[in-house]
Amino acid sequence: MLMTAQDYRESLRAYSPRVFIDGDRIDSVADEPRLDPGINGVGVTYDFAHRPESERLLTATQSSSGKTVNRMLHINESSDDLLQKLEAVRLVCKVSGCAQRYLSHDALNGIYQATHRTDATHGTDYAQRFMAYLHDVQDRDLTLGVAMTDAKGDRSKRPGQQANPDVYVHIKERRADGIVIRGTKAIVTGAPYMHEFLVMPCRTHTAEDADYAVCCAVPVDAEGVTIVAKPAGRPGEAAAKFSARYGQSTGVVIFDDVFVPHDRVFLAGETTEGGFLTTSYATHHRHSCIGARAGFGDLLIGAGAMMVDANGLDVDRHAHIRDAMVDLITITESFYACGVAASVYCEADPAGSVMPDAVFSNIGKLLLATKIYDMHRVAHYVSGGLIVALPGPDEDHNPETRADLTAVLGGRPDIPAERRMEISRMIEDLTVSNQGNWYSVISLHGGGSPEAMKREIWRNYPVAERQELVSDLMDRGVLAEGRKVSRQPGRCCATGCQPPEKISNTEAAE
Amino acid sequence: MLMTAQDYRESLRAYSPRVFIDGDRIDSVADEPRLDPGINGVGVTYDFAHRPESERLLTATQSSSGKTVNRMLHINESSDDLLQKLEAVRLVCKVSGCAQRYLSHDALNGIYQATHRTDATHGTDYAQRFMAYLHDVQDRDLTLGVAMTDAKGDRSKRPGQQANPDVYVHIKERRADGIVIRGTKAIVTGAPYMHEFLVMPCRTHTAEDADYAVCCAVPVDAEGVTIVAKPAGRPGEAAAKFSARYGQSTGVVIFDDVFVPHDRVFLAGETTEGGFLTTSYATHHRHSCIGARAGFGDLLIGAGAMMVDANGLDVDRHAHIRDAMVDLITITESFYACGVAASVYCEADPAGSVMPDAVFSNIGKLLLATKIYDMHRVAHYVSGGLIVALPGPDEDHNPETRADLTAVLGGRPDIPAERRMEISRMIEDLTVSNQGNWYSVISLHGGGSPEAMKREIWRNYPVAERQELVSDLMDRGVLAEGRKVSRQPGRCCATGCQPPEKISNTEAAE
Amino acid sequence: MLMTAQDYRESLRAYSPRVFIDGDRIDSVADEPRLDPGINGVGVTYDFAHRPESERLLTATQSSSGKTVNRMLHINESSDDLLQKLEAVRLVCKVSGCAQRYLSHDALNGIYQATHRTDATHGTDYAQRFMAYLHDVQDRDLTLGVAMTDAKGDRSKRPGQQANPDVYVHIKERRADGIVIRGTKAIVTGAPYMHEFLVMPCRTHTAEDADYAVCCAVPVDAEGVTIVAKPAGRPGEAAAKFSARYGQSTGVVIFDDVFVPHDRVFLAGETTEGGFLTTSYATHHRHSCIGARAGFGDLLIGAGAMMVDANGLDVDRHAHIRDAMVDLITITESFYACGVAASVYCEADPAGSVMPDAVFSNIGKLLLATKIYDMHRVAHYVSGGLIVALPGPDEDHNPETRADLTAVLGGRPDIPAERRMEISRMIEDLTVSNQGNWYSVISLHGGGSPEAMKREIWRNYPVAERQELVSDLMDRGVLAEGRKVSRQPGRCCATGCQPPEKISNTEAAE
Amino acid sequence: MLMTAQDYRESLRAYSPRVFIDGDRIDSVADEPRLDPGINGVGVTYDFAHRPESERLLTATQSSSGKTVNRMLHINESSDDLLQKLEAVRLVCKVSGCAQRYLSHDALNGIYQATHRTDATHGTDYAQRFMAYLHDVQDRDLTLGVAMTDAKGDRSKRPGQQANPDVYVHIKERRADGIVIRGTKAIVTGAPYMHEFLVMPCRTHTAEDADYAVCCAVPVDAEGVTIVAKPAGRPGEAAAKFSARYGQSTGVVIFDDVFVPHDRVFLAGETTEGGFLTTSYATHHRHSCIGARAGFGDLLIGAGAMMVDANGLDVDRHAHIRDAMVDLITITESFYACGVAASVYCEADPAGSVMPDAVFSNIGKLLLATKIYDMHRVAHYVSGGLIVALPGPDEDHNPETRADLTAVLGGRPDIPAERRMEISRMIEDLTVSNQGNWYSVISLHGGGSPEAMKREIWRNYPVAERQELVSDLMDRGVLAEGRKVSRQPGRCCATGCQPPEKISNTEAAE
Repeated sequence: MLMTAQDYRESLRAYSPRVFIDGDRIDSVADEPRLDPGINGVGVTYDFAHRPESERLLTATQSSSGKTVNRMLHINESSDDLLQKLEAVRLVCKVSGCAQRYLSHDALNGIYQATHRTDATHGTDYAQRFMAYLHDVQDRDLTLGVAMTDAKGDRSKRPGQQANPDVYVHIKERRADGIVIRGTKAIVTGAPYMHEFLVMPCRTHTAEDADYAVCCAVPVDAEGVTIVAKPAGRPGEAAAKFSARYGQSTGVVIFDDVFVPHDRVFLAGETTEGGFLTTSYATHHRHSCIGARAGFGDLLIGAGAMMVDANGLDVDRHAHIRDAMVDLITITESFYACGVAASVYCEADPAGSVMPDAVFSNIGKLLLATKIYDMHRVAHYVSGGLIVALPGPDEDHNPETRADLTAVLGGRPDIPAERRMEISRMIEDLTVSNQGNWYSVISLHGGGSPEAMKREIWRNYPVAERQELVSDLMDRGVLAEGRKVSRQPGRCCATGCQPPEKISNTEAAE
Repeated sequence: MLMTAQDYRESLRAYSPRVFIDGDRIDSVADEPRLDPGINGVGVTYDFAHRPESERLLTATQSSSGKTVNRMLHINESSDDLLQKLEAVRLVCKVSGCAQRYLSHDALNGIYQATHRTDATHGTDYAQRFMAYLHDVQDRDLTLGVAMTDAKGDRSKRPGQQANPDVYVHIKERRADGIVIRGTKAIVTGAPYMHEFLVMPCRTHTAEDADYAVCCAVPVDAEGVTIVAKPAGRPGEAAAKFSARYGQSTGVVIFDDVFVPHDRVFLAGETTEGGFLTTSYATHHRHSCIGARAGFGDLLIGAGAMMVDANGLDVDRHAHIRDAMVDLITITESFYACGVAASVYCEADPAGSVMPDAVFSNIGKLLLATKIYDMHRVAHYVSGGLIVALPGPDEDHNPETRADLTAVLGGRPDIPAERRMEISRMIEDLTVSNQGNWYSVISLHGGGSPEAMKREIWRNYPVAERQELVSDLMDRGVLAEGRKVSRQPGRCCATGCQPPEKISNTEAAE
Repeated sequence: MLMTAQDYRESLRAYSPRVFIDGDRIDSVADEPRLDPGINGVGVTYDFAHRPESERLLTATQSSSGKTVNRMLHINESSDDLLQKLEAVRLVCKVSGCAQRYLSHDALNGIYQATHRTDATHGTDYAQRFMAYLHDVQDRDLTLGVAMTDAKGDRSKRPGQQANPDVYVHIKERRADGIVIRGTKAIVTGAPYMHEFLVMPCRTHTAEDADYAVCCAVPVDAEGVTIVAKPAGRPGEAAAKFSARYGQSTGVVIFDDVFVPHDRVFLAGETTEGGFLTTSYATHHRHSCIGARAGFGDLLIGAGAMMVDANGLDVDRHAHIRDAMVDLITITESFYACGVAASVYCEADPAGSVMPDAVFSNIGKLLLATKIYDMHRVAHYVSGGLIVALPGPDEDHNPETRADLTAVLGGRPDIPAERRMEISRMIEDLTVSNQGNWYSVISLHGGGSPEAMKREIWRNYPVAERQELVSDLMDRGVLAEGRKVSRQPGRCCATGCQPPEKISNTEAAE
Repeated sequence: MLMTAQDYRESLRAYSPRVFIDGDRIDSVADEPRLDPGINGVGVTYDFAHRPESERLLTATQSSSGKTVNRMLHINESSDDLLQKLEAVRLVCKVSGCAQRYLSHDALNGIYQATHRTDATHGTDYAQRFMAYLHDVQDRDLTLGVAMTDAKGDRSKRPGQQANPDVYVHIKERRADGIVIRGTKAIVTGAPYMHEFLVMPCRTHTAEDADYAVCCAVPVDAEGVTIVAKPAGRPGEAAAKFSARYGQSTGVVIFDDVFVPHDRVFLAGETTEGGFLTTSYATHHRHSCIGARAGFGDLLIGAGAMMVDANGLDVDRHAHIRDAMVDLITITESFYACGVAASVYCEADPAGSVMPDAVFSNIGKLLLATKIYDMHRVAHYVSGGLIVALPGPDEDHNPETRADLTAVLGGRPDIPAERRMEISRMIEDLTVSNQGNWYSVISLHGGGSPEAMKREIWRNYPVAERQELVSDLMDRGVLAEGRKVSRQPGRCCATGCQPPEKISNTEAAE
């Protein structure tokens, strides 16, 4: 059953998580104004699955069950799946800023791969548990939060060496019917209005720290869970043309001896596979981030173009403005292209799913992480000085100043001064407000900081193949026969359409 | 008499301007919480003139009167003056974010040059009027607002062609004893807590628009003046570690038939000199902006380094962090160097003052305008993810969560978690908050947008000299004898110390 | 019949073009040492069509004839075709620097579209003539030069206004059996060792200049054709580890009243379609350039990594070296990703072929045009100073110095000093030599200068759709129902596999 | 006695160094065509000391002797000296590409400081020896080569651990009357046409490697010295409009048991001071590099502007061309500004001389090292495609093609086609030729690679002061009283003119 946004909001009433915001205990998440923009954001992923024009993007068929599920909960089986997911994320994020729910998708896909791999190595039965859980989540059309980033404490020490072991979530006790976990996850997107959390390790652990390699599912209101959250967006602010409606809460989530029954445990001490889970999740997530930030780019391009019009500037005469708009487009579409290429050159997992190409996914995320600041710069550049000068919206209704301001703050005669002011506030909200810039920080650090991307790019790139090429040219004048000559696209759609004579999915796999 | 910050605040009580903020009429500027951070910022320029260690920077001797004056009101006479001014602006801005009062300096220096030039051409007596006004302002140690940027209306039309003539301030009537001005200035820094406004043209006007070429001084509470302002900083916000104390208001200032007596009128229809005034003010101002934003750079460098320490990172082991810190330093000091070079290669004005070199001033401003976004990026990069994750300050006192959060949010053991959170909020305030990013927008557009700088660089650069060089090399193999071989530094200090065999002040002057 | 490189070289003997190089008349192109590197480069496209590992890339089935043809002569029918072409170009260029023959492909695909469009509008029979010509070219496995860029003369005047009409190639006379063309094309890649030239217009012409809208095929040794060419690569230079073998000649081609029979004329005065031809060729060509320069990136990555090894540097300890290598990879793969995305989102032409997406193709070309300089910088950075210091290869055999130099110029003990010197000269050849940097200039200006790409990006981008999005959000809080929600990939392979519910090929098409 | 260029060339006949180029033993350096461009380059520093317009820049008074000396041999005593040196280097390099002789200056200034410091610590008499040597060099107006960069061998090992000790120059034997040195210096600028070499350590050595800490002066033809050099520029090449006349040779210099008498030894085992010498030389040298590359910028700006004119482009109509020209200016003048600032904030050495500020010098060098590639890019951008298309100069006299080519290769009617072609070849020579790009590599690696600059910036920057600022603001809301408030300019001219109330020369010194 695919829920609507309204269904989703109502479904939250069935949970009673212990949530604090700004020091206040929240009674009802579904009714809390400070969380409303976050719930609206997630809601877009529900509603758009019902619209005819976006149904194809927001839904998919899960082949293991044969059921139609929300794409945010789907396990990808082809290059086309990855392309549709990328577009779906772009769509919901260009409407909502950040719909947040793609994190559910990223984690489910990572755990899918990791449970199969763990079973293959250790003879465990995690995959079977997970498939049952997955189908249940898809059937109930849930939204799952990713509880991954530990508080970490002293960065120069391993988890097991920390003065306070709770800076990392870990298995405190193993019982016959399950495990007890303890510790703190520092950044959980949308924590208060999730249905469940997927707890995952945020780094590779050594054998001594095996208890830190844990993956499991925990309802938000499980006993022992506390959420300390920030408000989502800028609820109730008149100047917030966008983020009064849509936003994103994050929470610190404290697990104070939380019991998790076996059928919800997907990893419990297998450190190598824990590291694999971290990486495969990261690859899915970085790929999704590309779609998300491209959606933000669409917003800036649209708002910037509207402001240029309202200022009465003709881009053909003012070439520097057109140039800047082209910069904004080029930044957005060039990192988006990396997401497309990662989809095309996807890697088939032995478990039957596909993973976006690691090199392209990491390059795309690396580019957006640093270019988001340029995007703000260009948006300000094309918008001109009004966002500096404009008095706040409370002034709009001051009878003593309103007429005078309206008379002088217009630009092009056919666009009312009020519309120009509204567009200006939209840009301010997107790029100057605390909320707008908070997106920059999560673009930079979310899904791993740039240094992590660089390591992954280096680790996965076929450098040796490039060296062979140059060696061949120096020694023979031409590439030696039999060398690998190109990458080939991955499985392009679920029903077949495998490119013939396929050599390998990615160079990196060799 | 040099006032203190407290004296300055008290002095505002002698004025009763008509000010609105967020729709409210303000009774007492000196007591208004929403303006307090702005008044504090200006106050720094007063207090630091009394401190022994900064007295040399913040004061100067006005040679026309022989009196010691605040440097923010001084007419520069040498390269050393310009260097000291640059350092003074950097100092007050690194303490206050933006002390605002350097705008008084920039305008006084521009008007000084323009009045002398106008008199030389037109036989007027503006310079004499202005010198009397200048000495009075210096004696009373005032702060003057710059009312320059007009509302502009339809950008594709000249002032005289606008449907509503009030989108530009202009002379509505010329009387025997003075003039009546009318129109709206769109962005006046610190408008509510200035003593007076210096009204100036914001562009070159054609002869038909002579009434728009007007420069004069108007007290903030002159009859017919209305100020619609924004709050300064983030007054009263607990999370605002910096901008609850220091900030900057801007106001739209409406001149509704304001009478200005002759002795306060410094330009009234001389369009060529009006254009010169706009440019010379802009050059002084762009030079000052360089010092201001370098001060902001100092804040980011300091805060970034503190955060790195608190996170427990050793920059020698984490080379990418050191690299990023060096980026921040390189950006800040490379645009600051342009300010230094503009001071060294200053141009002597026939009026006896000096103007910073136009090419270097414009390049420095151009660089800071675009690099401020990179500065934010680097500050976020070195700071890590805590600014994303940290709950707001109201949570700090929640007995149900405080202990848990403090236990896990620490980094290096010798730096308390509370201190780490405080530094994180400082960085958030400087770079994520609305206030922090508002500084980005004024860095980009304040003192003219990048396109204006580029035009000035091109207009002032000795391109022909470079072409002669290449022609000579092609035609003779060496620079022809007698060619100009270098720029020479300008008058380096007021007491002489002219470099020997001086050829000219700047290449651009030829 | 698919020729080999040796067949191709022999086939040139059947032609006797009038060619000058450095003032010398060339007797036999096939035997001229100054052209040898160019002929070798083209030869790679022939030989690699016969190797098992690259056969799939370098050949394709032309559906109109059912025959297997060299991919460099194939009309693309699907997204997969475009991807394979992109990889094929990358392959031949990473072996040869620039195999040049993809220009044949780009022109054939552009003319294919343009002739069909012209016939549809004007009722002409160009398409039929062209298909006959195409099949003949494929059957004979020819290489065609693109004679497009006119000499242009005074840039401020139209062709018809030029003092000398021959600065643009034009129809001088229309005869019953064909046309006579006259004028000069300024840059024809590989001119001396082509089989034929495809003459094409390089800009949109006005109706007055209809005679300049001409497209036709001319053998290189047609009467009246003169080629003034530059040597290819650095033939015979000992230091040229790469470009003594592979290079690229360009020629000025003078058409001095050259008769072209009707069956070789594909456009003769239809100015609108001439403009379309210029644009569609440019789009195909820019897409190919992406593959070409990615191949150059592969060379730099390989050579850089070898030099790092030879210097004895461990990238894990010297993070700044790894960082730089990752930069090189990121630059290369991010513009390549634009080529992949352009293939995926291809546009179906009514003629039955596909064209790469214009926005992504232009962005990719724009990025490579400017980033090629950064690629050189990074290659120098990782290579260290040996390329500055190393004496030339003639010194290698000097008995008085050889032993001393070899003794001290080694780095890592397991890599001989001679090998280190060889790698150093390879990098010098690729990035410091005249030949290496000439590639930078053609990367920048070839296929149109950056300004042309920016105009195309702006012209093709769905800006209005982005504005609608923001309008909807401001007016309704959500995207209006029925709006377009995403781009959909183009026809993915020739045998079907059309994505269901396809809405349109590109946003730009709307 | 100040020599002329001709005197200098003649003076080389008094030396008979053992020089090899391309495997040939050179008989007479003064008459060798392959060295002619290098000798011409150095010659500019001699001739320009005699021209009235440049005499002030190219000469200075050595206060220790009271004599007028060439500025390239002068010990700086003031900020003004540093500014004049900077302009002098810019001048000679904009005429010659790179006059090379500033290296003499940089080494003499570094050794001056180091000998005084060594004596102060160790009670040695190096300073006295050095002053005698200095005065002799000044009297004879010599040119000294810097023999600093060792061959280095395996980068992962210290000098004393190398398999072959000769990869670093070291003291092999200490005799009663002097020392015997042995080893290879890998990159010596202008080696064949120097009068003497100043041998210096290229890194800090440990106590075990004390024999590697050696500084001394050795005539180029001392017994045991062999020079293996590269040709200077592109001697004899018709297309080399610039570098057939001016260029730069570098040589590997082998010291095969060379005896150096005591009065020419300036350091012999004092490792700490050896490290100081390396750093102080590097600071002087990086400061000089800024002037040198700004001179190259002047060439590109001039040539670019000429090409734009010849192409018939009006920069006011083609804004993207003006924009690019402004980029070129901005890059050049912004790194030059760092050289100016380093001069102004110079540091006084206890020995009585001044050193440019380390932070600004390193930032300037870091910027030019990376931006030189952007400078090439912009030069190509503004020049257009002719440099790709133009046949070589040997074609210019081909009677069969000349008229046709000249007829079509013109641009603006008032600039002959021949001039346009000449300008195009000038740009090609400066930016596409091997010689032009070799300057890029030495800009990047010469005087230390970017990583070295970054370390120096970090080491010298007053980070602690910035942290105190932020701590004060967090703890008190304002900078604590008594804190340092600014940097003060250094001693501005030799005759006094010390700024009053001077606090310290540089922050870095604290």
